Amino acid sequence: MTRSCLAVILAAGDSTRMKSSMSKVLHPVAGLPMIAHVMRAIKASGIADAALVVGRDADAVTAAASLPGLAISSFLQTERLGTGHAVLTAREAIARGYDDILVAYGDVPLITEGPLLAARAALANGNDLAVIGFHTGTPTGYGRLLVENGELIAIREEKDASEEERRVTWCNSGLMAIDGRKALDLLSRIGNANAKGEYYLTDLVEIARSLGGRAVAVEAPEAELAGCNTRAELAAIEKVWQQRRRHDIMLSGVSMIAPETVFLSHDTVIGQDVLIEPNVVFGPGVTVESGAIIHAFSHLEGAHVAGGATVGPFARLRPGANLGEGAKVGNFCEVKKADIGAGAKVNHLTYIGDAIVGAETNIGAGTITCNYDGVNKHETHIGAHAFIGSNSALVAPVTIGDGALIASGSVITEDVPADALAFGRARQEVKPERAKAIRERNLAIKAMKKSGK
Amino acid sequence: MTRSCLAVILAAGDSTRMKSSMSKVLHPVAGLPMIAHVMRAIKASGIADAALVVGRDADAVTAAASLPGLAISSFLQTERLGTGHAVLTAREAIARGYDDILVAYGDVPLITEGPLLAARAALANGNDLAVIGFHTGTPTGYGRLLVENGELIAIREEKDASEEERRVTWCNSGLMAIDGRKALDLLSRIGNANAKGEYYLTDLVEIARSLGGRAVAVEAPEAELAGCNTRAELAAIEKVWQQRRRHDIMLSGVSMIAPETVFLSHDTVIGQDVLIEPNVVFGPGVTVESGAIIHAFSHLEGAHVAGGATVGPFARLRPGANLGEGAKVGNFCEVKKADIGAGAKVNHLTYIGDAIVGAETNIGAGTITCNYDGVNKHETHIGAHAFIGSNSALVAPVTIGDGALIASGSVITEDVPADALAFGRARQEVKPERAKAIRERNLAIKAMKKSGK
Amino acid sequence: MTRSCLAVILAAGDSTRMKSSMSKVLHPVAGLPMIAHVMRAIKASGIADAALVVGRDADAVTAAASLPGLAISSFLQTERLGTGHAVLTAREAIARGYDDILVAYGDVPLITEGPLLAARAALANGNDLAVIGFHTGTPTGYGRLLVENGELIAIREEKDASEEERRVTWCNSGLMAIDGRKALDLLSRIGNANAKGEYYLTDLVEIARSLGGRAVAVEAPEAELAGCNTRAELAAIEKVWQQRRRHDIMLSGVSMIAPETVFLSHDTVIGQDVLIEPNVVFGPGVTVESGAIIHAFSHLEGAHVAGGATVGPFARLRPGANLGEGAKVGNFCEVKKADIGAGAKVNHLTYIGDAIVGAETNIGAGTITCNYDGVNKHETHIGAHAFIGSNSALVAPVTIGDGALIASGSVITEDVPADALAFGRARQEVKPERAKAIRERNLAIKAMKKSGK
Repeated sequence: MTRSCLAVILAAGDSTRMKSSMSKVLHPVAGLPMIAHVMRAIKASGIADAALVVGRDADAVTAAASLPGLAISSFLQTERLGTGHAVLTAREAIARGYDDILVAYGDVPLITEGPLLAARAALANGNDLAVIGFHTGTPTGYGRLLVENGELIAIREEKDASEEERRVTWCNSGLMAIDGRKALDLLSRIGNANAKGEYYLTDLVEIARSLGGRAVAVEAPEAELAGCNTRAELAAIEKVWQQRRRHDIMLSGVSMIAPETVFLSHDTVIGQDVLIEPNVVFGPGVTVESGAIIHAFSHLEGAHVAGGATVGPFARLRPGANLGEGAKVGNFCEVKKADIGAGAKVNHLTYIGDAIVGAETNIGAGTITCNYDGVNKHETHIGAHAFIGSNSALVAPVTIGDGALIASGSVITEDVPADALAFGRARQEVKPERAKAIRERNLAIKAMKKSGK
Repeated sequence: MTRSCLAVILAAGDSTRMKSSMSKVLHPVAGLPMIAHVMRAIKASGIADAALVVGRDADAVTAAASLPGLAISSFLQTERLGTGHAVLTAREAIARGYDDILVAYGDVPLITEGPLLAARAALANGNDLAVIGFHTGTPTGYGRLLVENGELIAIREEKDASEEERRVTWCNSGLMAIDGRKALDLLSRIGNANAKGEYYLTDLVEIARSLGGRAVAVEAPEAELAGCNTRAELAAIEKVWQQRRRHDIMLSGVSMIAPETVFLSHDTVIGQDVLIEPNVVFGPGVTVESGAIIHAFSHLEGAHVAGGATVGPFARLRPGANLGEGAKVGNFCEVKKADIGAGAKVNHLTYIGDAIVGAETNIGAGTITCNYDGVNKHETHIGAHAFIGSNSALVAPVTIGDGALIASGSVITEDVPADALAFGRARQEVKPERAKAIRERNLAIKAMKKSGK
Repeated sequence: MTRSCLAVILAAGDSTRMKSSMSKVLHPVAGLPMIAHVMRAIKASGIADAALVVGRDADAVTAAASLPGLAISSFLQTERLGTGHAVLTAREAIARGYDDILVAYGDVPLITEGPLLAARAALANGNDLAVIGFHTGTPTGYGRLLVENGELIAIREEKDASEEERRVTWCNSGLMAIDGRKALDLLSRIGNANAKGEYYLTDLVEIARSLGGRAVAVEAPEAELAGCNTRAELAAIEKVWQQRRRHDIMLSGVSMIAPETVFLSHDTVIGQDVLIEPNVVFGPGVTVESGAIIHAFSHLEGAHVAGGATVGPFARLRPGANLGEGAKVGNFCEVKKADIGAGAKVNHLTYIGDAIVGAETNIGAGTITCNYDGVNKHETHIGAHAFIGSNSALVAPVTIGDGALIASGSVITEDVPADALAFGRARQEVKPERAKAIRERNLAIKAMKKSGK
């Protein structure tokens, strides 16, 4: 589309019903603030300029809305006098002169570029106004789109609608595109002679028509237009987002046994022939390559999983976890800021943080990299083909060479050369019959405690 | 409501289809026996006296039904002769003289006070009988409520219904309120001249009318009246309960990314601006204060989580876990009967039981409080600003002072003064090239085993 | 049924839309390849002979389809010329002479024996052809079954259907039974004079009728006939399978708080009065006996859980885990190839592999059986009534006698006699005020690093 366009995004709502300490448009969907989803759809539709009408948490909202390739100017709305008035808060931006003005909302995060393009296409076809509508089985409460001969003749609010008009299921979403050359004039004609004394954007239909202009309605799927006023609606929006993305990922060749139990982030990337078992949570920044398996009860965040690697069950990959081809991390293991080499195994009750683990190395059950001294973090380097005996503590900074062997239960504080054996544990002692004596003493104590009560 | 009322709760069913070793009314919904839910609704409606008609597991059912502020008398039903007969098992209580008699059932745990109040209000308005009904899209099998001029003229059982009557979707729930001054007389008139030879409570409609009385039907939402005959129905009831409570909690300002994966107990308390990620289970007795975060895969029970604290992912809080402001417990950690001080961190593969952890103390990965000697439990006291090195075992009873430092991999059996360093681990030894030799020996053993097969 | 029958299963599809590196019929549902589900339904219906028409992954598909008691011959389909042609790939098997030929598909894993028996019964009643159909609310795209006077007169493809025929909601599943004595003749009469030049099995209806034969349609539930062309459809099939099995298991007397979060395998066996909490995954080969409790976030595979035992929360039972009566495994514990004796407790952060744990023995938190030396696996034998102190490492092969006591934090490398006390840990040392000095040094290092940036 070669027409210029300014998107005006209303994001100043008080969000009272969210009962939240922050603006509703900052609440995340798939790990990304709602407003950011809207901005991405706007950018995806080819729009390069946006005017953000902000109120509560103005700076945070502007920051969350920022997106490379989209020039944003923010306007602080100080009074609440209706949507018509709110759009005019961005008067200065509108006055720059655009072919199209697109009005959108910060709390409609499921919108995609399709309906935005359709609305603008309607302007290109000579209309002054293109309102985005939706068909719904539950129209109660929405303004109805009244259409005659293909023209939108009015948006009738529920309270003003006749019996017959209430049966109309073609409803107003609030989003619309306005002819940019006429927009300021049209907007300035909106009056406030109504019960609440507010300026309603919906009046534009009749204003445009009274000036000989033409208004139309274009359709968007109802699901894309879901707005968010409560946390229950936020959860409903998240659900639709997740369903949509899971479906796309499955169609691309990913198996999910129970997709409804897999939670994706806005930027999750999953390769073909990956299997994802039930109950997996992907935080932001995860890439899983072809053929990997993500077992049940896994939680990944900021992690990269190479092809053929296996994660879980019960694995926690934190930012900077980088699993090589065929590597395995599972069974109550946590990996943070660490490379796990190709074919290496971290399989039981282990914490690997700030570390490099070489290829084919086996990390025994209960191994801990002691990376923190209470103040600073230190690194552990483990070579390839090494074997770390179970229940060992590797006190960083420390380096363990290729092929080295750490005896079970050792505390390793000094470097271990390649192919060396290291141990740091006490010799075992056995006291015959002593367990019996201890048990009897403990039972006596228990009896004493009891009688003491 | 100033009218006196006795609730008669029928809870003597055999529960055959539950295929259970206990009475169905003892099966829990949201961690509370079904019958207790019913009793709470009864009490919430302002009723102070209840007569419980019990059969199987009589004592356990009576105990489960007990509720402070509700006086309960139990009556053992020994014969199965229909609902009319069952209610008369409580004849002695009814004979005490009440304005209203409310008949309810032990297996209808979703009922709320609303319909109970409505039924009693109908008596206050001069009716002799008020039957609680529901509108349903699937009426097959239910008795139909036949209404004329606002009066309930009959409850028609499915098998006796005409073609036209079967199309009625206004159905009998079985719950009803009876004028308490007439109840014994009305109930004693129910006959058993029917195919099964049983006494049916539903006959009361025609009996009351034949005596010149008036019966009405009052509505309850279908969902509140779901009864429970199988474990599949029990699961369906649990689902509705959970949906209802999650919705209320979200509206109060709690975010849930995937509410359908969060399981609440009857007494779960969650403050505003708490975030609950997917897959969280709340056992009984949990309070989470404002602004806390409960990450995915967490299991809480009998725990208190202060504001700004972080739980999970993969945390298990057991009874007596008490997290201070900003404290963190996550990543395969279990806390039982322990105070975790403000800002303290228990973040990796740790077990803290019977302990006090001071503010800002850092518990290293893999730390275990050894609180059990096989017979008795002992306490561990850790001061503030202490640092427990990874993979340490703290053998209780033991006290570690403020600012103390425990070296990684230590076994601590004696008290450590404030600001002291303690270690209890062996010195590391290294045997060059020994790993290679051991590996070769092990490979030889493997080869031998293989050839031995 | 005493009539002989050959099932011809078409399983040669390219599965392009699955975007998979293997044939779609190998994709699992409830842990079992799709094709195996179909073969089980065929066998359950009493059929003893099957001809498998294979293409991609021919050997693997044949192997997956194999089932004791079902004689299978495989036929490689090399050309794609339509279903009629595909069935004739098995000409040699059909020519053996059977009363009935049943045509089924490898990607219809929800089919049960009921409709297969119904189709064959229709042949026994003198029909030449019995097509399995389903009633659906969404018929678009399916061939419609046109029936007159109880006879199936044609299968009308969507594209050829009149307006009126498109309103028919009685659709063709593709499965059918053909008179075995006439099958080769009928099949050989299918022509390819159509747009695609393919041989369509659906032509059999008109062919049979033109020869004076009779065709009928028999009904199957729509859910049983779901085919699988994409991974999204695969997930939908898995969901139906899971719902069906969960429901059956609940009706048999098993409680599930949230059945939609419990994932069963094709062979999961659960006894009466078992309680399964939310979020439990059963891999293949699990048996849970009456009265056991499976807490939330548990993952079981190849495990046996005796009555009264408790699993989870956060337990991982791997193949060969065998829990005795009243045993407990929970809280981040993993058990593999190990017997856990009656009443024994493995309750916190423990790995037990290749081991035997005696009755009533208590395994302390953080215990690890070190069963692997990097090459070979070794066994750990622990007697009854023993007590393994927390954070101990038991280096296999090793035997610990009845009633023995292992001190916390020990590394045990040699056998411990019954009733003996063993320890293998260093003596604790305390350096007063040293923690403060270390902290100051660490802070100085931090400051240096910072300024160095």
